[in-house]
Amino acid sequence: MKDIVKKGAIISLVDEQARTYLINTTDPTDLYRGIGLIDPSRFIGQAYGSKQDIGNKTFCILPVSVPDALKALKRNAQIILPKDAARIILSCSIRPGCTVLEAGIGSGSLTLVLASIVGPQGKVVSYDIRKDFINHAEQNLIRAGLIDQVIIKEKDVTKEIDEEPLDAVILDIPNPWDAVYHAWHALKPGGYLCCYSPLISQVEQSVHIIRSMPFIQDHTKEIIERDIVVSEHGTRPDFRMLGHTGYLTFARKRL
Amino acid sequence: MKDIVKKGAIISLVDEQARTYLINTTDPTDLYRGIGLIDPSRFIGQAYGSKQDIGNKTFCILPVSVPDALKALKRNAQIILPKDAARIILSCSIRPGCTVLEAGIGSGSLTLVLASIVGPQGKVVSYDIRKDFINHAEQNLIRAGLIDQVIIKEKDVTKEIDEEPLDAVILDIPNPWDAVYHAWHALKPGGYLCCYSPLISQVEQSVHIIRSMPFIQDHTKEIIERDIVVSEHGTRPDFRMLGHTGYLTFARKRL
Amino acid sequence: MKDIVKKGAIISLVDEQARTYLINTTDPTDLYRGIGLIDPSRFIGQAYGSKQDIGNKTFCILPVSVPDALKALKRNAQIILPKDAARIILSCSIRPGCTVLEAGIGSGSLTLVLASIVGPQGKVVSYDIRKDFINHAEQNLIRAGLIDQVIIKEKDVTKEIDEEPLDAVILDIPNPWDAVYHAWHALKPGGYLCCYSPLISQVEQSVHIIRSMPFIQDHTKEIIERDIVVSEHGTRPDFRMLGHTGYLTFARKRL
Amino acid sequence: MKDIVKKGAIISLVDEQARTYLINTTDPTDLYRGIGLIDPSRFIGQAYGSKQDIGNKTFCILPVSVPDALKALKRNAQIILPKDAARIILSCSIRPGCTVLEAGIGSGSLTLVLASIVGPQGKVVSYDIRKDFINHAEQNLIRAGLIDQVIIKEKDVTKEIDEEPLDAVILDIPNPWDAVYHAWHALKPGGYLCCYSPLISQVEQSVHIIRSMPFIQDHTKEIIERDIVVSEHGTRPDFRMLGHTGYLTFARKRL
Repeated sequence: MKDIVKKGAIISLVDEQARTYLINTTDPTDLYRGIGLIDPSRFIGQAYGSKQDIGNKTFCILPVSVPDALKALKRNAQIILPKDAARIILSCSIRPGCTVLEAGIGSGSLTLVLASIVGPQGKVVSYDIRKDFINHAEQNLIRAGLIDQVIIKEKDVTKEIDEEPLDAVILDIPNPWDAVYHAWHALKPGGYLCCYSPLISQVEQSVHIIRSMPFIQDHTKEIIERDIVVSEHGTRPDFRMLGHTGYLTFARKRL
Repeated sequence: MKDIVKKGAIISLVDEQARTYLINTTDPTDLYRGIGLIDPSRFIGQAYGSKQDIGNKTFCILPVSVPDALKALKRNAQIILPKDAARIILSCSIRPGCTVLEAGIGSGSLTLVLASIVGPQGKVVSYDIRKDFINHAEQNLIRAGLIDQVIIKEKDVTKEIDEEPLDAVILDIPNPWDAVYHAWHALKPGGYLCCYSPLISQVEQSVHIIRSMPFIQDHTKEIIERDIVVSEHGTRPDFRMLGHTGYLTFARKRL
Repeated sequence: MKDIVKKGAIISLVDEQARTYLINTTDPTDLYRGIGLIDPSRFIGQAYGSKQDIGNKTFCILPVSVPDALKALKRNAQIILPKDAARIILSCSIRPGCTVLEAGIGSGSLTLVLASIVGPQGKVVSYDIRKDFINHAEQNLIRAGLIDQVIIKEKDVTKEIDEEPLDAVILDIPNPWDAVYHAWHALKPGGYLCCYSPLISQVEQSVHIIRSMPFIQDHTKEIIERDIVVSEHGTRPDFRMLGHTGYLTFARKRL
Repeated sequence: MKDIVKKGAIISLVDEQARTYLINTTDPTDLYRGIGLIDPSRFIGQAYGSKQDIGNKTFCILPVSVPDALKALKRNAQIILPKDAARIILSCSIRPGCTVLEAGIGSGSLTLVLASIVGPQGKVVSYDIRKDFINHAEQNLIRAGLIDQVIIKEKDVTKEIDEEPLDAVILDIPNPWDAVYHAWHALKPGGYLCCYSPLISQVEQSVHIIRSMPFIQDHTKEIIERDIVVSEHGTRPDFRMLGHTGYLTFARKRL
């Protein structure tokens, strides 16, 4: 009977254009943009996977997945996209129980992915120097039901890192090189550093610092994603494509 | 003191060309290709992150990460590469505690990544019809210390799926469309199906079946990865690049 | 003294945002979108490469180049982009003096490139079944000063090809396979066939027909172009990028 | 009757694996690597497009195309590949009758493409500082029958350019920025400069100089080419792919 929406659950509503909305069944009746006026408690007792007509639209009720939470994320800053977040998870060896630091928090998109992977035994610490980003990201994490795994601090990662030992440090700031020294100190031996930067000069400056310190296995990657459109006319890559996001530089602490 | 190699640990040895070897400290003295004759127990008590001279080479001792385990994987079949495995993890919403089925096992590369993410509370079930692949992959999983999260079965996924309910079904077989019906039945509502296929015609055939059944949000992606070479001469994409692996088709069960 | 605009010349005006306008110095005074009211004869006697203030903008006067003509092209149909037109020129061995057939004409973008390369000793024959496309493309070719090298016919290439022997036949139509037989007959031995198609199924159908006839060296390519943004902040690929245009299939007639 | 090999012709022999050999029918009997001992005069009078058995292989006799000449080119230096040469032709507006300077000559691959496009009314001037490269490239151009359009000089383009006015200057040297001043002086107004460089730092240094001089419309591109494999199993991008060659920076002289 686990496939029935229970009181307290957060659910995904997916419309026929695959637009995705997160709804907390404990929230009061309200006007939801793109859905209309709804009492979230109406979904309690419904079957996951079933369809519901709301207004003149049909929605499918689903348990919240990580892709749902990313789609429903409200953005106020440039976000780290799934293609890059996915590679960070794997290349930094993020696993259940890990303790990970990221800076800055942005809109909380990477935070959300990290929190989902480290799970209840792990912890994500997120630094940002902008209070408005922190508040915004916090709301996104609450909405996705992932706030319990996250500690957010209004703090400048280039000044200091409080936590240690860390399994990974992920830097999405304009000057990651200024935090590499602190990252090294906070990391466990074998722990991973990742710098996410849009510009080649940022990559070069980060790699320069990394190679001057006891890190091994440094390497830099770019991840490119093409959507493939399959229709009754035939199959082709999507005409729309994002030309660039950021380069990912990884390295690993040694003694 | 957790940064000292303990009895029973599996460690990574990384040489100066970033070649990576997994060593089980409980194994007997043996000849290791690329290292020489060593008694693995010599590493017990050493500090993680420290350097060790073995023969005329220097190695760094590190805890085994997922990238290490993938690099040290012995291949006898085409493997799902990290770029694709990473995207599968995120797009199928694989998290700690998930129960996931994959078929076939190949050399166990995706199995290994899935096992590391579902963690001790989760389970990876892997089907393959070839006994030799199963035995080979099993050795890779034992070597990486991840066999406990994995159940391997000599079984044809196009005939039947025993386990349910599943959070995700990942098909890396020549004819994934023949397993889509079974996958639908075995999945939880909202659970993810992923088909990995090198050919466009395979994508088309899978999508055709998926769209004829109660799935939503189907989409197909190609992930391309470029290595960026940073050296004292300057920075550029690597001249070497893999031109193609497989397309990833995702869909999600509804009722 | 050849660097002075002469009576009868067509010139490029390039503004400071690199927007490009073609002006025929023999045209009467008129309102030019993006420039304002101008008497084109005012440019006669000016030096190529010099700057002119018109209204509140500054323009550079340049001789018309092929990239200028392509930028200034008025579009009413999907065009073959420079990245693909360039590859067609080289892979079909288009040279001064060649006789080339293309179908359809679209907005005349490929026609324009072909005409510029075959030169006064060569000839481009262009078929289209839509009178509106023909009229529109003709205007683009007149504007670029390249109409003399082009013969345009309202004709269906899948029915018949009048001209022979041809150095190359380039098919940008939804069903290129229906014209392959006629192309073979019209081509010189060693002449090139090119099919431009957005869909994989189109590529497959064309290749199937090509391989059933006396062609050699068939191969299919996709050309991807990334713009690189160099600014004072640093260098990176452009965030904007076109995800796909068409696949290029080439083959060569044998007996 | 133009489709018969005449005395003095250079022909292409293409084997069944699409390997391509250039043969001058006036050359004496010799041992040709990959073909065997042949008297080139045997091809005189044969029909273009016909097949010939030589030893135990079958070859197709074709007129020499630009792609043939590029495939048959003997390399002793890194060459500019067709994907990049094609873009240079179009973006520099190379046309019949143009006068173009390139430096260095390398193995003559770009020289060959430029010579084929400028035709008998045009001229390609090629500078190189290495006598061995010049001799090697010259042989390639003679073999392809394109030497008449080319003037080769043992000369350092960063010191001086003798020729003017030029339609285009194409720099494939490690330090193109050192030749930009000379290029500007030698170019016609509206003439094109192209720098081909593998490294981002080279692009930046060239763009920096270009922007400090009277050039307009500067832009930088990377061209990526994917081969598509069509077989009876289905269609997919080739697993093999070249990850990077060079960036192309273009700009145009103004006064």
